[in-house]
Amino acid sequence: MSRIAVFPGSFDPFTKGHELLVKRYASLFDKIIIAVGVNSTKQYFFTLESRLNHIRSLFKSLDNIEVITYSGLTVDLCKEKKAQYLIRGLRNTTDFEFEKSIAQMNKTMTGIETLFLMTDAETAAIHSTIVREIKKNGGDISSFVTNSDQLIIS
Amino acid sequence: MSRIAVFPGSFDPFTKGHELLVKRYASLFDKIIIAVGVNSTKQYFFTLESRLNHIRSLFKSLDNIEVITYSGLTVDLCKEKKAQYLIRGLRNTTDFEFEKSIAQMNKTMTGIETLFLMTDAETAAIHSTIVREIKKNGGDISSFVTNSDQLIIS
Amino acid sequence: MSRIAVFPGSFDPFTKGHELLVKRYASLFDKIIIAVGVNSTKQYFFTLESRLNHIRSLFKSLDNIEVITYSGLTVDLCKEKKAQYLIRGLRNTTDFEFEKSIAQMNKTMTGIETLFLMTDAETAAIHSTIVREIKKNGGDISSFVTNSDQLIIS
Amino acid sequence: MSRIAVFPGSFDPFTKGHELLVKRYASLFDKIIIAVGVNSTKQYFFTLESRLNHIRSLFKSLDNIEVITYSGLTVDLCKEKKAQYLIRGLRNTTDFEFEKSIAQMNKTMTGIETLFLMTDAETAAIHSTIVREIKKNGGDISSFVTNSDQLIIS
Amino acid sequence: MSRIAVFPGSFDPFTKGHELLVKRYASLFDKIIIAVGVNSTKQYFFTLESRLNHIRSLFKSLDNIEVITYSGLTVDLCKEKKAQYLIRGLRNTTDFEFEKSIAQMNKTMTGIETLFLMTDAETAAIHSTIVREIKKNGGDISSFVTNSDQLIIS
Amino acid sequence: MSRIAVFPGSFDPFTKGHELLVKRYASLFDKIIIAVGVNSTKQYFFTLESRLNHIRSLFKSLDNIEVITYSGLTVDLCKEKKAQYLIRGLRNTTDFEFEKSIAQMNKTMTGIETLFLMTDAETAAIHSTIVREIKKNGGDISSFVTNSDQLIIS
Repeated sequence: MSRIAVFPGSFDPFTKGHELLVKRYASLFDKIIIAVGVNSTKQYFFTLESRLNHIRSLFKSLDNIEVITYSGLTVDLCKEKKAQYLIRGLRNTTDFEFEKSIAQMNKTMTGIETLFLMTDAETAAIHSTIVREIKKNGGDISSFVTNSDQLIIS
Repeated sequence: MSRIAVFPGSFDPFTKGHELLVKRYASLFDKIIIAVGVNSTKQYFFTLESRLNHIRSLFKSLDNIEVITYSGLTVDLCKEKKAQYLIRGLRNTTDFEFEKSIAQMNKTMTGIETLFLMTDAETAAIHSTIVREIKKNGGDISSFVTNSDQLIIS
Repeated sequence: MSRIAVFPGSFDPFTKGHELLVKRYASLFDKIIIAVGVNSTKQYFFTLESRLNHIRSLFKSLDNIEVITYSGLTVDLCKEKKAQYLIRGLRNTTDFEFEKSIAQMNKTMTGIETLFLMTDAETAAIHSTIVREIKKNGGDISSFVTNSDQLIIS
Repeated sequence: MSRIAVFPGSFDPFTKGHELLVKRYASLFDKIIIAVGVNSTKQYFFTLESRLNHIRSLFKSLDNIEVITYSGLTVDLCKEKKAQYLIRGLRNTTDFEFEKSIAQMNKTMTGIETLFLMTDAETAAIHSTIVREIKKNGGDISSFVTNSDQLIIS
Repeated sequence: MSRIAVFPGSFDPFTKGHELLVKRYASLFDKIIIAVGVNSTKQYFFTLESRLNHIRSLFKSLDNIEVITYSGLTVDLCKEKKAQYLIRGLRNTTDFEFEKSIAQMNKTMTGIETLFLMTDAETAAIHSTIVREIKKNGGDISSFVTNSDQLIIS
Repeated sequence: MSRIAVFPGSFDPFTKGHELLVKRYASLFDKIIIAVGVNSTKQYFFTLESRLNHIRSLFKSLDNIEVITYSGLTVDLCKEKKAQYLIRGLRNTTDFEFEKSIAQMNKTMTGIETLFLMTDAETAAIHSTIVREIKKNGGDISSFVTNSDQLIIS
């Protein structure tokens, strides 16, 4: 049976933190599905298309990474894709408390497990929210997002 | 003098976590008032009426539980109801930091004390916010809310 | 049925933080038992006798406070004393995580509940460990312990 | 070279917590610039003019405190003002995790350092968000904000 | 290439928390090595032999679990055993901060990755230290350790 | 008046984390005193002499860094040295809670202030305790301590 994992998020944008995590997880799974959540009631800062292109370009040399969009519950996507694991990164204790609740509620509902890696030291400070705030104020986000010029503001 | 406590919240919805807390507090107080906050500038996911009916149905076998609505400051409600205590649950450190600030500001303003119980392990992961998110996406929330079919979406 | 609570600790020494907590809890219970744990394999900084005298002197004007020593499991003491509650203070998130584990293990073993108050702002920084360290180095601990001259170093 | 620090925030309102922090930092720097951020897409509870007047009145006896408004990135303001330091307070672990990320991202972008003091015990519970909530509900905020009658609701 | 993980610890004793973690990790790896650390300068509460027998008995129905002892650095053991991963559980934020440091230092030294699962709700309160304390004081630890009667006090 | 700060610790050993902190603080103060605490009842892993030589060698190009030993209370040393500030680094929330208590107790006793910088990302995982553990087990600590070969085991 092949080991399949889903890495869910809104990735607005997909930072160096996300990028490094996927690379570290890549050897553990036969396939990793990066699943970009689309919620019709939410406004995104960067266009969906540019986010998808951006993520795909980062992993074009890796065979076992797939980038898709989804709506609805993450656990339903996992069932559909026959993924046995969700994968996430942990930056700090605020992340920890939130991720613990989500992981336990997902497990209660469907039995799916969530695996964690500690975010690397050099990227642990990067938050998509702050990256957007910097971009809005005309700052340079290239320290936090690889090939950030591929992203187009909505 | 009778010991009266107020358990305030928006309870949108009232989860198994809230339910278990009230049951554990019930023997400590002569009366517990479950106070559903109503804020005219806020949108709620479930209708107020269905939330009230739902909570009342959960405690119909307990004599000393009253369910009311209120607006304005929680400490003003306590004075009006001659309640000496606010009661709350603590799930994790994020809760802890927020509840500590609220409790200390309430005490500074009016001298009212806030008592805490640690949320039980089996319900500590439940957050109303996540429960609403699951419901919005068509998921089943019956693991997290007793008699969840009594709740009506606004 | 009278409401009885146990406040357990080594109280080496009993600080202003402990003192204020007991005073805040005093009106909630018919009796509070301050239980000084005695562990034959542990070394204490202040003599047991002086710690007991010190605590008793602080509460001599309160009728419903009893000060005792105990060894063995705290939950066994509660059963013996017919206490339904353990009471504790929470200073910070480190306390929180430790106290949560103890409270849940005590509840699993015997069903006994632990109630919490947030430590008051002005005493939340006080740790018995640091107080002892200050005393060892010849510092003045009177800001942290009422009537600290009653305490005798072992 | 003179030591210049920027204390940035929306200060909606400027609480006793902020006030005490600036007073404690005042002797360390030749000049402290209190920089009130103005974001055109954000709604503020108190008018900008009343917030500026309020803050200036609190420090009129201190020579080295300047109060200004700014928009855009905080690090750009620092460069413009030749400030080598950002200064902030830390109330609790939630603050800590957020401030750590901001401080590290600011340092990565521009090398600017952020210094921290622990908020004093008596003001650590004060959050501008809760102060606004109290005011909205007709409560008295004078325990949390000096000369709070100078503030005018937008 | 087979996926091999090491689960290191002193396991004094191996609790239901540890047991459940290994079972949840078992399907992700081709082999899991439970590595009981032996440090000649440390005193253990239960005998090494009884701890080993106890752990082995818990997993006798699982083919891919090996139980060994080791001394020295955990990362050296991983290299010797050709294990690419360390696996751990996270109960709370205190665990999180400690495990994050260890994981990052291990990665800096040897490149080895540490994977985490959130400890299940029903076992997250269990700490080996508290279990030993209960046992020392004559309490019943069978709620926290499966087949606890196999363990022999040193 | 010159600005003098004390950086206290046992520095067993003085890691790259400590080193980077002092360099970042150096431009803020006229003098920084690195104060190596000596406690006659404590056992240190590296000899005091080698620790002092090691620290001095790291800062020999900086004029305003002094390295001394001290015993007794840190606040007494500050008074003696006319230092107005203690300086520390914050790695994580466990550090935060501990340092907050110490800082507030020091301020209560003597009015002395403690300033904090967030430890840099690349050194935030380094703990002296773990470094000693690695050295004891024959590991290489040169990633965590500059010129670590100058240190001599006691």
